[in-house]
Amino acid sequence: MAVTLDEVAEAAGVSKSTASRVLSGSSRVSDRTKRAVQSAAERLGYRPNRIASGLRTRRSNLIGLVITNLVNASFHVITEVLQQRLDERGYQVLLCVTDADPAREARYLDMLLDHRVDGLIIVGTGDNTEMVRQVGAAGIPVVNLMRTPQNVPGDSVMAADREGAELAAQHLIGLGHRRIAFIGGPAHIDSGRDRYAGFAAALAAAGLEPDPDLCARGPYTMAFGAEAARRVMAAERPPTALYSANHEATFGTLGALVQLGVRVPEQLSLVCHEEAPWFSYWHPPITVVDNGARDLGELAAEQLLRRIDSRPDIGGPGGPEGAGRLIRVGSRLVVRSSTTAPGRPGAAPLTP
Amino acid sequence: MAVTLDEVAEAAGVSKSTASRVLSGSSRVSDRTKRAVQSAAERLGYRPNRIASGLRTRRSNLIGLVITNLVNASFHVITEVLQQRLDERGYQVLLCVTDADPAREARYLDMLLDHRVDGLIIVGTGDNTEMVRQVGAAGIPVVNLMRTPQNVPGDSVMAADREGAELAAQHLIGLGHRRIAFIGGPAHIDSGRDRYAGFAAALAAAGLEPDPDLCARGPYTMAFGAEAARRVMAAERPPTALYSANHEATFGTLGALVQLGVRVPEQLSLVCHEEAPWFSYWHPPITVVDNGARDLGELAAEQLLRRIDSRPDIGGPGGPEGAGRLIRVGSRLVVRSSTTAPGRPGAAPLTP
Repeated sequence: MAVTLDEVAEAAGVSKSTASRVLSGSSRVSDRTKRAVQSAAERLGYRPNRIASGLRTRRSNLIGLVITNLVNASFHVITEVLQQRLDERGYQVLLCVTDADPAREARYLDMLLDHRVDGLIIVGTGDNTEMVRQVGAAGIPVVNLMRTPQNVPGDSVMAADREGAELAAQHLIGLGHRRIAFIGGPAHIDSGRDRYAGFAAALAAAGLEPDPDLCARGPYTMAFGAEAARRVMAAERPPTALYSANHEATFGTLGALVQLGVRVPEQLSLVCHEEAPWFSYWHPPITVVDNGARDLGELAAEQLLRRIDSRPDIGGPGGPEGAGRLIRVGSRLVVRSSTTAPGRPGAAPLTP
Repeated sequence: MAVTLDEVAEAAGVSKSTASRVLSGSSRVSDRTKRAVQSAAERLGYRPNRIASGLRTRRSNLIGLVITNLVNASFHVITEVLQQRLDERGYQVLLCVTDADPAREARYLDMLLDHRVDGLIIVGTGDNTEMVRQVGAAGIPVVNLMRTPQNVPGDSVMAADREGAELAAQHLIGLGHRRIAFIGGPAHIDSGRDRYAGFAAALAAAGLEPDPDLCARGPYTMAFGAEAARRVMAAERPPTALYSANHEATFGTLGALVQLGVRVPEQLSLVCHEEAPWFSYWHPPITVVDNGARDLGELAAEQLLRRIDSRPDIGGPGGPEGAGRLIRVGSRLVVRSSTTAPGRPGAAPLTP
């Protein structure tokens, strides 16, 4: 059983309230008493009851993290980074995986209010904005991550998806490609919408437009990626380049390209969106748009901690008025060996 | 700010203690009073203070999950499953990623004691068994997952790694392979040791023994997998089959095989350990030993919940005496298209 404060007080020969004053760091105690209590606490292995101190300080030291899944490389990197940064500051992560299910998300938000979390970081489905507002109204700082539904409180830390897509398309256009295929996410998710918009904008700036036969937009699944790759490669005039903007689908896309015998980059230049360690170990190493998952995690943690530190009810100066701040983490193009000019020597015609 | 119990009591026209009795589910209150308090609580949006009730009931409703990382497919599947199952029973997961660092693990165990978690699930480094014993001694049920250091308290839920490795090797031997390469984890980690032991046992049963030129054992990294694949494929007498028992290394191994132009399965049959969705989308779809990550998560959650329910200090019948129970989740071989008989028609000599 856990050692109680009473036992520490008795061993130190002081009253319970004196022992409590020492262990909560009060200065109104003599050095001798302080040493007696501290050594008794240490000898007995006493641990302050964090639940009781949470009631006193109105801090739970818990942060709710509401996230879509842990399979996506960006999501598991972000979760690892957030957990480490928050732990370094004494906060622990209550992990809530939604699987993009609004009902699960709603239950989690309710539960996190019950647990009196000190902050919330959420990759929102967009269907529970009223509940997220309730969290904000309860004085709990909120950071929206990667998705910013309309009318949610708090700050947002977002990837520069549109800019990243433009970098991918500009790189391929710059190499001389004109028939560029696009495999991306659905239009109702921020990243699906923004990456297609960036792709189309870069094409437009070069006097081109997306070819419907070469564009496939669908769910974040490997099955979709495999089917989409087969579809765009079977076009009457096949593409010379492919921008794979749907990370989950990319595994299916790569498998289908190997199956079709497509040689990268000789027959098809390839850019994938969202960095993952195995891209640089692939053959050929794959050119990617790095969306900065580590930085997204770092900045979300920093922004949340800053808001928590400024909460007026725990002695901070109070947060800023008005709407939250939007922080966008820039995308970077990492050029490896999967992209080259079209029709290079050695490039054979495509044989499906 | 949060609505207080005082405000609910005032709105319902009852005393604070009556309001408290109603909201904690006591039956010694009239139906009329009950309805008045409940409707006031609902109207005002009152939430019971879970911190205060945790102090009263000695339950925090928090479970510590100490795990190596979230990048490994087994680990992120296990984390998702555990979180969902525990949440369904009203428990929340405090996520602690160790990165296999014993110092971080020690800090987490200390913190989890402070937070008075109701249970601990740990993929242990093996360096903090004394602290894990302290957790058990504090009356907190412990489940050791995937790794069972010596002398730890609690139950263990383990993968059948040795059996799985035997299945992989027996499958390849059964197809007629005699020169079978092995790329695995280090000997001081359970899975590294057990998979090699199973591989060697299956070979011995067939009158064979591991060829040092074809065996590489090293860290759970892609870089190691790439280097190991190049090394075993460069052997004077190259292998006709490869058992890739190190999941993290597998990405590097596959990339190196593509780079070397090795055709699977015509030139090299391939079995990988630990299932991941993309194996079935690869070309060719890859034969795997499925270690049952989902079942590992399900059983760890079930076993922990059973122990929590039987804790004597919260009214349960008390746990069983003596050492904990070991539960082993069986491995399954999933045969896909990456394995075939050696020297099939069409198989060309290996050209590095």
